[in-house]
Amino acid sequence: MKFKNTVFEKIVNRKSVFQGKYLALQTLVVKLPDGRLGEREIVRVKDAVAVLPLDNDGNVHLVRQYRAAIDKTLLEIPAGLLNGDESARQAAVRECEEETGYRPRAVTKLITYAHAEGYSTGFMTLYIGTDLEYTGRIHLDSTEFLETVSMPYHELFNMVQENRIMDSKTILCTLMGKSFIMKNVRTIEP
Amino acid sequence: MKFKNTVFEKIVNRKSVFQGKYLALQTLVVKLPDGRLGEREIVRVKDAVAVLPLDNDGNVHLVRQYRAAIDKTLLEIPAGLLNGDESARQAAVRECEEETGYRPRAVTKLITYAHAEGYSTGFMTLYIGTDLEYTGRIHLDSTEFLETVSMPYHELFNMVQENRIMDSKTILCTLMGKSFIMKNVRTIEP
Repeated sequence: MKFKNTVFEKIVNRKSVFQGKYLALQTLVVKLPDGRLGEREIVRVKDAVAVLPLDNDGNVHLVRQYRAAIDKTLLEIPAGLLNGDESARQAAVRECEEETGYRPRAVTKLITYAHAEGYSTGFMTLYIGTDLEYTGRIHLDSTEFLETVSMPYHELFNMVQENRIMDSKTILCTLMGKSFIMKNVRTIEP
Repeated sequence: MKFKNTVFEKIVNRKSVFQGKYLALQTLVVKLPDGRLGEREIVRVKDAVAVLPLDNDGNVHLVRQYRAAIDKTLLEIPAGLLNGDESARQAAVRECEEETGYRPRAVTKLITYAHAEGYSTGFMTLYIGTDLEYTGRIHLDSTEFLETVSMPYHELFNMVQENRIMDSKTILCTLMGKSFIMKNVRTIEP
């Protein structure tokens, strides 16, 4: 596949509008291909990881939590932000254990993607977590409240097909994990 | 599947921090289940739609554009925000024609999801667009510059598998559209 030599805009200035605890807001001035100036509003957030923890019986371990931005309680795979200088893989193992009590001895990367490319700097990396050890060491942030929910993988897959799972990371991980899971777990079909 | 009767936080106050052209920032005060107060930073954006336009020869019509937030040029399905009081379906038909010049006479809904449930109010609805009429009526916003790119669907599918597509809407639409496409297009395999 070949692309034309299209010229796109260039960022020429960056101004901080708000610096919060979790996100920052900036306005960018861009030079458009026709020479005019334009403005873009962007949100800076930390990159994140999410893991679908899959045990040897074909069950997955999820979390149910309230999301204030959309005022809804969602069923999701465990996820979180990268801490300090840890790698995405380390963050995935840590978040999985902290939120579900299951520590994956192996994590397989599925994909990295921009979750809101129109206005956010944030990238998400998705993993399947396997060879799970139940440590029970659930450790949540002081203002984080969630509930663990386990179910067969095929039940989660059906919920995605029925649009009953509302967040992109869980939908994507469930769909992209299917061929991995079919290969690695014998007992997965109902 | 049954959930426990977990009590989650409740929003008790909402403060506007920034009102831009495309997005607004608010801080929320929430009452946590243990009675303490917490703060959440959220971004308010309009809901959006995206369409995978698929012709009778099994080709898809995409756009390549620069995304300032991540400072990268991405290959994506046509997408945009809902205008005024138009429905998601109307917005999908309009955005498809305005960005690619192809007007879908039929759009089939795949899914609606929250694209950044941790901090954004935004929902995205995905469609497959079929029975395409080429009108050539490309009409971009005054600060929008993009390039159209056509390719066989299976080539896009392979790019997704190789993590060469970076945005969640295009990845999701390509994966979720597969069974629809396999049923409706005979000439799709290489």
